[in-house]
Amino acid sequence: MTRATLLFAHGARDPRWAEPFEAVAGRVRAAAPERPVRLAFLELMSPDLGAAVAALVADGATRVDVVPLFLGTGGHLRRDLPRLIEAARAAHPGVELRLHPAIGEQAEVIEAMARAALSFGE
Amino acid sequence: MTRATLLFAHGARDPRWAEPFEAVAGRVRAAAPERPVRLAFLELMSPDLGAAVAALVADGATRVDVVPLFLGTGGHLRRDLPRLIEAARAAHPGVELRLHPAIGEQAEVIEAMARAALSFGE
Repeated sequence: MTRATLLFAHGARDPRWAEPFEAVAGRVRAAAPERPVRLAFLELMSPDLGAAVAALVADGATRVDVVPLFLGTGGHLRRDLPRLIEAARAAHPGVELRLHPAIGEQAEVIEAMARAALSFGE
Repeated sequence: MTRATLLFAHGARDPRWAEPFEAVAGRVRAAAPERPVRLAFLELMSPDLGAAVAALVADGATRVDVVPLFLGTGGHLRRDLPRLIEAARAAHPGVELRLHPAIGEQAEVIEAMARAALSFGE
């Protein structure tokens, strides 16, 4: 099994929007150089989820961990992303696609946001 | 001078969306119990920025650090938030309002997101 990580973000018209997501992808690649890592976007930026999954499969991935780079869970993660995942599963039936919760709900990310917010008040 | 922290998030229809933001506010309050801390939302949730600033001023704040709980900088932070800040400054001329960069651009938050993304792949 070859595991891959797909970092799924919202997208925006402003190219600077993607900078933190590219930084996260770079840190993941540095920490796990053997693991294929790609970004995908819900809208306004490319690639979309289907194209990124296809690229990871072309990289040799047989399991893809889909990590939503969203701060919380709203309609995009509750409705849009599951539909995109189902379409990708149908397109790649031999590949395991695992959908994980919003990164902003993880305790270490909440802690880091709180520390950063406190540092802004000094 | 009484410093206060205003955590500014996007808002969504789904009430669960606000949970990580409430968690961040809780951690900031726990770490700095003397500091007034309030959430505000751009849309779909309340209070809005103007109401939250007014509440912090009523709490005694003379300086408000506005911390955008956004992952990156797009149109909302480049255009919408500065306009809201200007209106709040006009409404409270004796209060210093400091606008900080997106929390998702802070190195410790990027690191925490990368660690969480890696842990999902284990």
